Amino acid sequence: MRLDAPGSERFLQSHSLGMSFAGGEANVAVALAHWGLTSRLVSKVPAHDLGTACLQAYRQHGVDTSFVARGGPRLGIFFVENGTTQRGPQVIYDRAGSSFTEVSPNDFDWPRIIEGANWFHFTGTAPALGLQVNAALREALEHCRRHGITVSFDVSYRSALWSVEEAGETFRKLLPFVDVLIGSEQDARQFFGVDLSNDSKSTPETREASLRALQSEHGFRAILFSDRTVSDIGHHFFAASLLMGEPSLVQDGGKQHPVVVHTPSVEIIPVDRIGTGDALAAGLIRGLLLGHSPQATLNFALAAAVLKHTIPGDFALASVAEINHFASGQPLTRIRR
Amino acid sequence: MRLDAPGSERFLQSHSLGMSFAGGEANVAVALAHWGLTSRLVSKVPAHDLGTACLQAYRQHGVDTSFVARGGPRLGIFFVENGTTQRGPQVIYDRAGSSFTEVSPNDFDWPRIIEGANWFHFTGTAPALGLQVNAALREALEHCRRHGITVSFDVSYRSALWSVEEAGETFRKLLPFVDVLIGSEQDARQFFGVDLSNDSKSTPETREASLRALQSEHGFRAILFSDRTVSDIGHHFFAASLLMGEPSLVQDGGKQHPVVVHTPSVEIIPVDRIGTGDALAAGLIRGLLLGHSPQATLNFALAAAVLKHTIPGDFALASVAEINHFASGQPLTRIRR
Amino acid sequence: MRLDAPGSERFLQSHSLGMSFAGGEANVAVALAHWGLTSRLVSKVPAHDLGTACLQAYRQHGVDTSFVARGGPRLGIFFVENGTTQRGPQVIYDRAGSSFTEVSPNDFDWPRIIEGANWFHFTGTAPALGLQVNAALREALEHCRRHGITVSFDVSYRSALWSVEEAGETFRKLLPFVDVLIGSEQDARQFFGVDLSNDSKSTPETREASLRALQSEHGFRAILFSDRTVSDIGHHFFAASLLMGEPSLVQDGGKQHPVVVHTPSVEIIPVDRIGTGDALAAGLIRGLLLGHSPQATLNFALAAAVLKHTIPGDFALASVAEINHFASGQPLTRIRR
Amino acid sequence: MRLDAPGSERFLQSHSLGMSFAGGEANVAVALAHWGLTSRLVSKVPAHDLGTACLQAYRQHGVDTSFVARGGPRLGIFFVENGTTQRGPQVIYDRAGSSFTEVSPNDFDWPRIIEGANWFHFTGTAPALGLQVNAALREALEHCRRHGITVSFDVSYRSALWSVEEAGETFRKLLPFVDVLIGSEQDARQFFGVDLSNDSKSTPETREASLRALQSEHGFRAILFSDRTVSDIGHHFFAASLLMGEPSLVQDGGKQHPVVVHTPSVEIIPVDRIGTGDALAAGLIRGLLLGHSPQATLNFALAAAVLKHTIPGDFALASVAEINHFASGQPLTRIRR
Amino acid sequence: MRLDAPGSERFLQSHSLGMSFAGGEANVAVALAHWGLTSRLVSKVPAHDLGTACLQAYRQHGVDTSFVARGGPRLGIFFVENGTTQRGPQVIYDRAGSSFTEVSPNDFDWPRIIEGANWFHFTGTAPALGLQVNAALREALEHCRRHGITVSFDVSYRSALWSVEEAGETFRKLLPFVDVLIGSEQDARQFFGVDLSNDSKSTPETREASLRALQSEHGFRAILFSDRTVSDIGHHFFAASLLMGEPSLVQDGGKQHPVVVHTPSVEIIPVDRIGTGDALAAGLIRGLLLGHSPQATLNFALAAAVLKHTIPGDFALASVAEINHFASGQPLTRIRR
Amino acid sequence: MRLDAPGSERFLQSHSLGMSFAGGEANVAVALAHWGLTSRLVSKVPAHDLGTACLQAYRQHGVDTSFVARGGPRLGIFFVENGTTQRGPQVIYDRAGSSFTEVSPNDFDWPRIIEGANWFHFTGTAPALGLQVNAALREALEHCRRHGITVSFDVSYRSALWSVEEAGETFRKLLPFVDVLIGSEQDARQFFGVDLSNDSKSTPETREASLRALQSEHGFRAILFSDRTVSDIGHHFFAASLLMGEPSLVQDGGKQHPVVVHTPSVEIIPVDRIGTGDALAAGLIRGLLLGHSPQATLNFALAAAVLKHTIPGDFALASVAEINHFASGQPLTRIRR
Repeated sequence: MRLDAPGSERFLQSHSLGMSFAGGEANVAVALAHWGLTSRLVSKVPAHDLGTACLQAYRQHGVDTSFVARGGPRLGIFFVENGTTQRGPQVIYDRAGSSFTEVSPNDFDWPRIIEGANWFHFTGTAPALGLQVNAALREALEHCRRHGITVSFDVSYRSALWSVEEAGETFRKLLPFVDVLIGSEQDARQFFGVDLSNDSKSTPETREASLRALQSEHGFRAILFSDRTVSDIGHHFFAASLLMGEPSLVQDGGKQHPVVVHTPSVEIIPVDRIGTGDALAAGLIRGLLLGHSPQATLNFALAAAVLKHTIPGDFALASVAEINHFASGQPLTRIRR
Repeated sequence: MRLDAPGSERFLQSHSLGMSFAGGEANVAVALAHWGLTSRLVSKVPAHDLGTACLQAYRQHGVDTSFVARGGPRLGIFFVENGTTQRGPQVIYDRAGSSFTEVSPNDFDWPRIIEGANWFHFTGTAPALGLQVNAALREALEHCRRHGITVSFDVSYRSALWSVEEAGETFRKLLPFVDVLIGSEQDARQFFGVDLSNDSKSTPETREASLRALQSEHGFRAILFSDRTVSDIGHHFFAASLLMGEPSLVQDGGKQHPVVVHTPSVEIIPVDRIGTGDALAAGLIRGLLLGHSPQATLNFALAAAVLKHTIPGDFALASVAEINHFASGQPLTRIRR
Repeated sequence: MRLDAPGSERFLQSHSLGMSFAGGEANVAVALAHWGLTSRLVSKVPAHDLGTACLQAYRQHGVDTSFVARGGPRLGIFFVENGTTQRGPQVIYDRAGSSFTEVSPNDFDWPRIIEGANWFHFTGTAPALGLQVNAALREALEHCRRHGITVSFDVSYRSALWSVEEAGETFRKLLPFVDVLIGSEQDARQFFGVDLSNDSKSTPETREASLRALQSEHGFRAILFSDRTVSDIGHHFFAASLLMGEPSLVQDGGKQHPVVVHTPSVEIIPVDRIGTGDALAAGLIRGLLLGHSPQATLNFALAAAVLKHTIPGDFALASVAEINHFASGQPLTRIRR
Repeated sequence: MRLDAPGSERFLQSHSLGMSFAGGEANVAVALAHWGLTSRLVSKVPAHDLGTACLQAYRQHGVDTSFVARGGPRLGIFFVENGTTQRGPQVIYDRAGSSFTEVSPNDFDWPRIIEGANWFHFTGTAPALGLQVNAALREALEHCRRHGITVSFDVSYRSALWSVEEAGETFRKLLPFVDVLIGSEQDARQFFGVDLSNDSKSTPETREASLRALQSEHGFRAILFSDRTVSDIGHHFFAASLLMGEPSLVQDGGKQHPVVVHTPSVEIIPVDRIGTGDALAAGLIRGLLLGHSPQATLNFALAAAVLKHTIPGDFALASVAEINHFASGQPLTRIRR
Repeated sequence: MRLDAPGSERFLQSHSLGMSFAGGEANVAVALAHWGLTSRLVSKVPAHDLGTACLQAYRQHGVDTSFVARGGPRLGIFFVENGTTQRGPQVIYDRAGSSFTEVSPNDFDWPRIIEGANWFHFTGTAPALGLQVNAALREALEHCRRHGITVSFDVSYRSALWSVEEAGETFRKLLPFVDVLIGSEQDARQFFGVDLSNDSKSTPETREASLRALQSEHGFRAILFSDRTVSDIGHHFFAASLLMGEPSLVQDGGKQHPVVVHTPSVEIIPVDRIGTGDALAAGLIRGLLLGHSPQATLNFALAAAVLKHTIPGDFALASVAEINHFASGQPLTRIRR
Repeated sequence: MRLDAPGSERFLQSHSLGMSFAGGEANVAVALAHWGLTSRLVSKVPAHDLGTACLQAYRQHGVDTSFVARGGPRLGIFFVENGTTQRGPQVIYDRAGSSFTEVSPNDFDWPRIIEGANWFHFTGTAPALGLQVNAALREALEHCRRHGITVSFDVSYRSALWSVEEAGETFRKLLPFVDVLIGSEQDARQFFGVDLSNDSKSTPETREASLRALQSEHGFRAILFSDRTVSDIGHHFFAASLLMGEPSLVQDGGKQHPVVVHTPSVEIIPVDRIGTGDALAAGLIRGLLLGHSPQATLNFALAAAVLKHTIPGDFALASVAEINHFASGQPLTRIRR
């Protein structure tokens, strides 16, 4: 459950909170379903009305929630103070003891869940939620491997949940199951040992070098690195680079692999930056599932993420047509009537 | 933290929640401070901005929050669906793992807290929150006994928190510390062994019998029993009876003790019934502290509780003048301008 | 300017206020314009945007505001806490020093204002606003007398503005200009010396006696008395009686005058009782202007006032068709689609 | 699309409108899906974002919207002024030229739609929407007959859409396809020639007589008659009677058929009466589908309708447990925590 | 009727809509009335309360609505998603079958409507609404010609309503009646055959050339071309050029005609761009009516349009003083207190 | 009382107003209390509920309101239209006749008020409120001098309240009591005779010259000058310079006095600029009270003021940690979670 202080109010001023439901993996599922792909959510929410309201929120966009277990004590909550310009967003997490952290092996019937599936996506916040979630995740990943289901992993490190060391150790154990990695140069340096002695500034060139180094060591089928810088006044500059490790996933006209493609950096004045990484991930997954070219895939993913910044809430509620329009370099800034 | 679905919406329909801060003991502290008495809150809230917002909410009404410990993982939350007529309120508690449940002996400097105090109030939800809260409560009660501070206990049994058996066992251990008991005939029957074989209907006569039985066994200085019945359409009928066990607390013109006084039953169409029991408790404490007569004390307490039903939120934000006006039998229904 | 605490909130809880514009005479003008009659407002509001917003509010319903003077320091304000059931409305007036209290003789061009007019209405709050308003009112009344314009006066005594003695003295000086009086038995007793030794309960019989006594002494063309009682739970019971002093104003089939007619008492659960007296006055003026029978006039006026209770804000925004429907004894309670 | 004036505001006062999506058949589908049954909606909505938002609204409660055709010019709209007490709701319909009125035979693939279905429900507003809707409805009914799918018809006559004569002629043509009829004594009299010379007051006795007369003539498997009266102050009194024409649908312990059962009349202070008839219909369909006894079926249906009156919006968002609780005579008026 | 998704929400997210009333010609009438000129609206709205609410909206700003016909099926509606930065506004029109599209010759009493008028303004959306509106427009234009009333035409081509070819054919038939044309270089190229082979970029020089070419062919008394470009991040750059074809309308110090004047390009971060073209048109009409110089007229018109971008809703609610202040090059950005 | 038109609405459009409580001195008191310092407010507010609500607003942030006198006719009000980009904020003051303007010598018990205090702050709007406020202020200043309490004066000239001449005369009489002056180069020129013949552009160099000139003439312990310029699109550029006249107040490593330090100019897109000067003053007072270095003091003050621009309402609700973070040159623009 996401609870938002209104407008640019501080928590200290608010007397009501916007209520919505969101989460990294759920955001990806919603974006894919909204774009017409079939997506299923695997999670656990309490049996009370707020748990039902949570499922409604995903179901309205077409996500299949029939495999979400019901029970346990509570919904995880995060409180969002959106901020503005010089004062960026502040998030207070309140998810200790949520129903999802208490999943048990019996909650999920993996054979039925993955029946007919060809992609499995998870983020780095799931393994941060404790042993039970990790056990369930591990079980899922083994099922995926057995059935040849592509696995994507969005690093999404949250320092409020665990240390870099703890996260790194856990992440590295998961890597053998991962086909598609989504992260940043900093993630590569912090968690996966890619230290090219560059300074902290990320450019297409540094990203390409890091991507190739990471790929040569771990052999992913695809890696997406994004880079976000924020100006003093709070404008964002967002760019991404994609490495395709092998020719099988996309149309690439017979290029020699690994191929690396880039986007230019896009200036953004964000309305809501939460969920933009999930929009990027969903855009990547869609392009890879549909066999688009690396550049088209990356452009779509970046456009989805950029447009997400203009939409309140976690969900990337832009249509394929709108995203393609934007990705093709045509603005959506004019009035459409 | 209290989060309210707007108007008569169901949780399943809401997209925003009213945010306020409340709790049984805090409500009593706010009412007393609002009426001009000095009150201090003892609790523990997280060190983040929502914890600060919580203290602000109490401080604005004049409650001294300087003894509230800061730290721990989270604020306890309760979600309120207010309902209407045939569909009464629904509350979803979410307070597992709150900062208050993790209080430690070092959080409270009791000698300084009770310095200058002459009353200590707690409700039956506090001891339901686990061993640590119980230990802190026990320590407080021993300090109170040592310093001759009057202790009031509002039974407030919540079946969502524990069973009747668990609660009864805990409550009975606390009784020796209690001077003033606030509850109902059903509480007397369920927890304190007063079984007069009457049926479940509560009348002034049955309440008086139960009060005298309870007093003769446990020797409280005062006991207040309230009774609430609710009609099919959701109208409430609210009444109370007060036993004064000894002459020392109030002006009673030399009557023979124990004295029992009653109020008539008042019809109420509630706007918000949460916190009305706390208004009753605060009204009782005020009357006893100021040495008012039993009947004046009970009338004020009932009037405070009745008017609370007309006020959104947990707090009994009616003035002493308004409550006295109502308690004296004059309506507040006419426009005041 | 009227500023409303939201819903049933107390002023102590509110963080926003509903803003509208209203006033006794303006409410009558709006109702009459809404019913298709021509009405002009005479007042004074500041030259800034809030003054303009005030005129917009009247103009949207068709009131001619072209004679409202612009200038002076401020708009009079009243704050409304609507209350509910046992806790009735509370109004805080803040109109000291308003632009209207500082009207000067030059602000109003009476010959042009009353050109083509055949009715002039004022309430008892206007003369409470000081010497300058009184002087302007006096000038208006003299113009009305000279041009044979019917004058109605709604007593509307507000104890927050002045004492019974001050008000009575002023009111009695105005009576010679008044053709149609709107008030209550209590007004007759308090201000106009009609003391029939009855107790305070008003019935059709007592109202008829008072009306006849008042008429025999002062010779009004028409007098309307309303009576409102409020139950403990805040339900209202509203009734009215009308005396027609002479046959000239209405269709009355040659009855012997003075004629007195009554309405039954109507039970009301008010949404907003402010402005209901003005709806009654507007209904009376409409019936008299259109020459309806005394009973039809009174029924329409009462129906307008009853329906006003169901409408938020000061204005009686019910159509003639709706009011006639209700006045004819047919309910408007069924869904209309 | 349903657009609501806020609170008890008149259309003349509103500056925002609550937006939701609803419709007779959709409301039934939502209630059934919310209660765990599978339901599909057949309709047509525009291809733009508001059409998508409409489908989201149904999908969130689990209704299968995959057979809703997309296209056409517009969504039908109805504007709702909710009213209060003496001033009941007012609805302004704006559905001329909606996409649904322009359905074509190609829009619906009936064989796939009814695959696996065992019930088909429609209301009397559908055939009021013109020839194209009628043709589609006719086609659907013929498919249902061919596949033995039970058909229920809720008369729902709307005088704003067509005359009694037009409606009657159309309705009578549809009757041969109908297994279960939902309406009132007045419907029986107006449209189906059951004239028992009773006055307009409906009682269990008059309803039973009308039900038996209607059944003996038309041979329905089940008929439900409801009766609603509204007091002067806007309280509703709601009751229903059910005739079961044959033993096959329900558990009835071998009673002789037709069986007629009744509910007592329940007093209601409505928050939102729109959609309450659909809640009744959904409750009936559920009972018949699950083979409950006539009395249990009727009690559940009435309880669903009564609780719907307490819920804003068209949807009957009460759980099976809540409705059963209420239907079993236990109040839901107490706080549940 | 204009219905706005709140803030920067997408239609897919909204649960309420802001309600206002607007339309191209009405916006011009409101601006002129707000600036103290007399303006009348000619239209047709339904006889129900929403139609009345529409008239109220115009009347509050002083527009004379007494010639608006009442009747017909519905109000035209447009839904607005305001967007932000990279995602510009989206408008869904829903005006098929509106009352205005069904105007009949009897609805308008042109001799009385144009009595005392010296200006008639219409936009290019009116003739797009079908034969009946076109017939009424034609009748109005003939009355204007006969009585020497200046006619202004704002091209306002909307591709959602008709094709460039259809619009061009209709527009060209109307040109002989038009004295003052408001549009853009693109309009001149698309509809009026001014093809100067320039690329699509509009500059003062290209605008001047187009204006002179258009004037030399059609002989308008005045032509205003505006140009809007939008940056990738959604900032607007707005400029305008005005050709005065003859000396009679304005103070121009004896310059040789046609005179062409320009404004610099102004950067705008729009709050609401809808209605800005109408503000420009109203500013132009005002300057021409008051005989201001071409440069002063154009500066005022552009300033009105720029300030309109900062105001939510369609109406240019800025005062003459504010617009003049801005037009004279002094900013309004500092706090005014 | 501060009443805000919602969002970027004009007063002419609003139907509700945000309600908060604020004032120059109160804002400083709230900021200091929020940062953990003890602060007391001296003022007078009416005895009704809105007066109480005002005190609650300050008390929630920890300000001691026990010395605020109760009584008098009304609260001063200011209405705020926030504007946006090209259309800056507009404030309508309505504080004539407020309770504070009618303070009497008996309202304040200065010896008790200043007991334990070591700082007294006032702004230039207080002496603008008439003789009674001036007398009270004079009395306070004399008490301060007698007890060695540091006095700071924020010039805050408001042209709506009085002329430059009147203000200057009054300000100059107060200077002998002032230790710390807060203003601008323009204030120095307008009120205090520092005319260095520079043009109106303020730079660090011109500010330093003016500061030194003012100090050499009047001998203040510290002077802070801020400078704000606003771009055409409404971006602000804010900078400040601080002169320390003597070594006693701060840690300055033995620099030769007077010392002058500067901040760079910071670009701001303001959410709410009201109260930013008070945030600056509070930051200065805090630094001086805590003995920070001149540069650290000025940096903190500027950071507090810059962050205040991002916060709705008058209060500088940023924490010491946040302000220090920003003051140290690290952005707060990234998401904090």
